[in-house]
Amino acid sequence: MPAATVPAPAPLLLTPGPLSTSPGVREAMLHDWGSWDSDFKQLTVDMRAAVVGIAGSAERHTCVPVQGSGTFAVEAAVGTLLPRDGKLLVLVNGWYGTRMAQLTRQMGRACDTYEVEETEPHDPKELARRLATDPAITHVGAIPVETSTGILNPVDDLAATVAQAGRRLIVDGMSSFGIVPNGLDTLPAQAVIASSNKCLQGPPGMGFMVASTADLEAAADRSPSLSLDLADQWRHMERTGQWRFTPPTHVVAGFCQALREYRAEGGQEARLARYRENCRILCEGMDELGFRRLLPDDRQAPVIVTFHTPSDGCYSFSAFYTALKRRGFIIYPGKTTRRDTFRIGCIGHLFADDMHRLLAAVAESVDELGVRTRTP
Amino acid sequence: MPAATVPAPAPLLLTPGPLSTSPGVREAMLHDWGSWDSDFKQLTVDMRAAVVGIAGSAERHTCVPVQGSGTFAVEAAVGTLLPRDGKLLVLVNGWYGTRMAQLTRQMGRACDTYEVEETEPHDPKELARRLATDPAITHVGAIPVETSTGILNPVDDLAATVAQAGRRLIVDGMSSFGIVPNGLDTLPAQAVIASSNKCLQGPPGMGFMVASTADLEAAADRSPSLSLDLADQWRHMERTGQWRFTPPTHVVAGFCQALREYRAEGGQEARLARYRENCRILCEGMDELGFRRLLPDDRQAPVIVTFHTPSDGCYSFSAFYTALKRRGFIIYPGKTTRRDTFRIGCIGHLFADDMHRLLAAVAESVDELGVRTRTP
Repeated sequence: MPAATVPAPAPLLLTPGPLSTSPGVREAMLHDWGSWDSDFKQLTVDMRAAVVGIAGSAERHTCVPVQGSGTFAVEAAVGTLLPRDGKLLVLVNGWYGTRMAQLTRQMGRACDTYEVEETEPHDPKELARRLATDPAITHVGAIPVETSTGILNPVDDLAATVAQAGRRLIVDGMSSFGIVPNGLDTLPAQAVIASSNKCLQGPPGMGFMVASTADLEAAADRSPSLSLDLADQWRHMERTGQWRFTPPTHVVAGFCQALREYRAEGGQEARLARYRENCRILCEGMDELGFRRLLPDDRQAPVIVTFHTPSDGCYSFSAFYTALKRRGFIIYPGKTTRRDTFRIGCIGHLFADDMHRLLAAVAESVDELGVRTRTP
Repeated sequence: MPAATVPAPAPLLLTPGPLSTSPGVREAMLHDWGSWDSDFKQLTVDMRAAVVGIAGSAERHTCVPVQGSGTFAVEAAVGTLLPRDGKLLVLVNGWYGTRMAQLTRQMGRACDTYEVEETEPHDPKELARRLATDPAITHVGAIPVETSTGILNPVDDLAATVAQAGRRLIVDGMSSFGIVPNGLDTLPAQAVIASSNKCLQGPPGMGFMVASTADLEAAADRSPSLSLDLADQWRHMERTGQWRFTPPTHVVAGFCQALREYRAEGGQEARLARYRENCRILCEGMDELGFRRLLPDDRQAPVIVTFHTPSDGCYSFSAFYTALKRRGFIIYPGKTTRRDTFRIGCIGHLFADDMHRLLAAVAESVDELGVRTRTP
């Protein structure tokens, strides 16, 4: 194994996560914690309380953390909450919706999708019609911010439709948790799921679900996976203060520090305002440079922006990526199905100055590569 | 959320993992990596190659990492390798064997156990008899070092028995990988599983399986879990160089540094020699202080040692634990079923001096608490 080669200074991550963390978050990972020790138990208690404080009520709701990535947490939530004879209808307009349907089917549960174009929102009337037509559907899965395009899906009306039809809503809040107010305090949903490394700006390595203790009690022995059984994780944690299986202690410590910084910044409103400003600078600057965005302003979440690939034959994503990386910025490939795109994120430990520096780097890179971004 | 309260200086972890890591491992976590970036892909390539170098042949075997704890990796391996109509016989003499059986049953696969006393090894003849009696058994699960007691299970004869009976062996190498030579280069096994945070001394947050590429090819579409599907993770990683879902980037970087340090120390022999010396000092010192060990020397793996609770009514684990923690050492509760015990680990970034200091702290704590460790 070759020696460590850490590029210095670290490029900024303009990605949807893992993203650039603060120095404080990274430094919090310098300590080894005993997972059985009372200090670590307290860290877990504080973390769970802080998360519930963002998206629920301390009386009725609880946060159940789980090791792994965001997808692990979504799979864990579906496996724990969906009864074995239940059926999930997933609202799909991007990759992460498709993935939620895929993981549900792979665990052997019934699943259907209501799919629309990846630049379009879902129609509450059509959702109502589908729920009326298929009484087998017990749950609906929705994604307020689809990371594959950055579209802001207005879930309020959809959530009301699901509630009116007497079904339960599971919210994949991966890219919205902490900035878009769609926790259990504002939405009639059964659960919201997110991960440590998105808008809360922690290191990657764990996710969590916020749900009611009543629903968790009812969900015992339902999960087809021991590792991903959140009802069991919750029971064990309440009884012992410990995670069932080895927690990613350094990641948990980093995430706790990220939650402290979230609060110090001013919580949801302040974080959203900063991301909005980052996003505004990015969009306006890229517009000016001649890039075309996939989404109109009113459907753009301030999380990640999708741009059409310039039609100039000179352009290649790989050359553009490398030119930007050399200038200290890492961007993201596109994840759209039918269009050629790339993405630039605006979340993480990023500020207006960083976005302005990025735009200068984009302008330089475009020049260097001789790419025309404007249609003549 | 209260401000960070990091006990300073950090207590040493005398635990079976998460354990005390080196300063170099922790510092490697100070960098944010883009999970899509070529530098991180290279980190993953290097990590996988280093792991295969420890326990397999680069021509036939591959390492498939997975997010989460060691149990996630064991569940992922069983779900990926055991055919839907397969049956697993787990050799149980402790909690981790019981857990392997539990996770197999929870995913809906057939499972049986061959259980012996937690201080006893399994009998190859009895195993042969059980395999002959039940032709439905396709796989056997074995654990060379049972972390719940620290017993060294001699798997060579058992592995030969499994191979002679034409069945496949899955090795949970959590507490043996990297120190006991039972990789696929020495054992006739199908797969060996371990995690980042045991004898390889990385941070917790990921596990891995070493298996043959031929077996992974045959295992497509078998896993009941998308997140834990190691055949899919492997295919994706081979095709794109990336993890399917967000990797714990900082943990991966820390683990890579741990693998470099493992090699620099001298690999398996040197690591085993250091742990043996730690274990010898611990056992002799505790013997001298009047503590009684659960296992005889020839069944004791140099990983974690189980001690009987002193019969003196003055003793409580919690008071003993706190007294030791105040002196800078964190130990572990017992995990035996019928006896009252506690455990002290000897793995991690620990050296002879640390073990001597620990023994002094134990002597002081016993004095302070007025506990008589010797039966009069």
